[in-house]
Amino acid sequence: MSKKIYLVGAGPGDIELLTIKGLNILKKADVVLYDALVNPKMLEFCKQDTLKINVGKRKDYHLKKQEEINELIINYAKEYEVVVRLKGGTPFVFGRGYEEVRAIKQAGYEPVVISGVSSTTSVLENFMIPSIDREFSDAYRTITGHDTQRFSEIITAFHPRENLVIMMGVHNLEKIVHTLLEKGFPSSMPIAILSRGTTQNAQQLLFTLEELKHKEKSFFEEAKKLTPAIIFVGETLNATKVLLC
Amino acid sequence: MSKKIYLVGAGPGDIELLTIKGLNILKKADVVLYDALVNPKMLEFCKQDTLKINVGKRKDYHLKKQEEINELIINYAKEYEVVVRLKGGTPFVFGRGYEEVRAIKQAGYEPVVISGVSSTTSVLENFMIPSIDREFSDAYRTITGHDTQRFSEIITAFHPRENLVIMMGVHNLEKIVHTLLEKGFPSSMPIAILSRGTTQNAQQLLFTLEELKHKEKSFFEEAKKLTPAIIFVGETLNATKVLLC
Repeated sequence: MSKKIYLVGAGPGDIELLTIKGLNILKKADVVLYDALVNPKMLEFCKQDTLKINVGKRKDYHLKKQEEINELIINYAKEYEVVVRLKGGTPFVFGRGYEEVRAIKQAGYEPVVISGVSSTTSVLENFMIPSIDREFSDAYRTITGHDTQRFSEIITAFHPRENLVIMMGVHNLEKIVHTLLEKGFPSSMPIAILSRGTTQNAQQLLFTLEELKHKEKSFFEEAKKLTPAIIFVGETLNATKVLLC
Repeated sequence: MSKKIYLVGAGPGDIELLTIKGLNILKKADVVLYDALVNPKMLEFCKQDTLKINVGKRKDYHLKKQEEINELIINYAKEYEVVVRLKGGTPFVFGRGYEEVRAIKQAGYEPVVISGVSSTTSVLENFMIPSIDREFSDAYRTITGHDTQRFSEIITAFHPRENLVIMMGVHNLEKIVHTLLEKGFPSSMPIAILSRGTTQNAQQLLFTLEELKHKEKSFFEEAKKLTPAIIFVGETLNATKVLLC
């Protein structure tokens, strides 16, 4: 049997949102290769002599290219017994986890995926926004806002009972707002910017598409500083107003 | 300050996919109200004298109506210190969690959401299927297949770089297949039925839309027994074939 390499989802930031399974494997890890979005406090679960490698990728600041990360994982697996690739959120949701799976298999090792709490769902929960609330919605679309051309191709129409969860889109916020209005999203549609997930600096900004349409360039420049952020668009935001409080 | 009531995501079935935060609150719980989709072994994390209430809802077999569940939560909170509502997956994804939040707030208590690992992402991971693989996709749509009319309204077009994650749809599989073909999904499109999440009875069936189009009624009757199941549609299923193994 070939040696296992573990892809572990670290969750959305709060170290206690790591799973029991993830915790158990971190405790045994000889090497942990971790992302920029992983809370470094999570590494305190490891043994003292665990090798901790920051392979964080962030826009405009790629510490390592994906190919280099793949190579590092394989090289460490040759030398060490328990190699863990610790990834923000969960491995197969915008994490390029499957590219690592391919590299691991091609090198003759066995990839084991330990799912984490995805930021696509939990960051909304942290702000008490339901991805789905039966009164308002039947579906939600999770999409990268990084490529505005593709975004515009995929989002062809508006349906009031489908929400949008836009990842990595805050630097393209202006373009995204215009695209949504062009596609028939009502100008009264609420849109939330959910910044810095479940960390202590978590912050929510709430607008309508109409409001954002009239913002100056400088606003959108400032908004870029909210990274990492999720843009949430949908009637479900109105669900939160139905409450007594 | 008002008393807290905890909505905890139990994850997709594997008890070790509970979060550390969820585990800690289960250990302190005086009452746990749990769903049909929660692995009952997870209740062994509780104190021995914890009151464990099965409020499971399943199609055609509603143990309790949502209003009754809301009422139970509130009534237990009046009597007990730590009341936990333990929900399959994560509270705000098709869990009617927000309806419970409303009831809790209206009764004057403070809802606390502890996110879990959503089955919408982790069941795919359990079968080594990426929700997103950069080579194939930029987006995925998560939608209920329960209401085929709404399904047909929301899914208006096909885009090759967007996958579909259809929840609670296996009893409407035939209708869903026909709808997708009508909307322009290619007949060669792969479609997977992922049955029973991360449990020991987990099972994956892989087809093309064309293959399912020609199945007999009896096949679709049999397929209903795969509940609970996720239907996954997308080119990303081809990603799994690109591997050497």
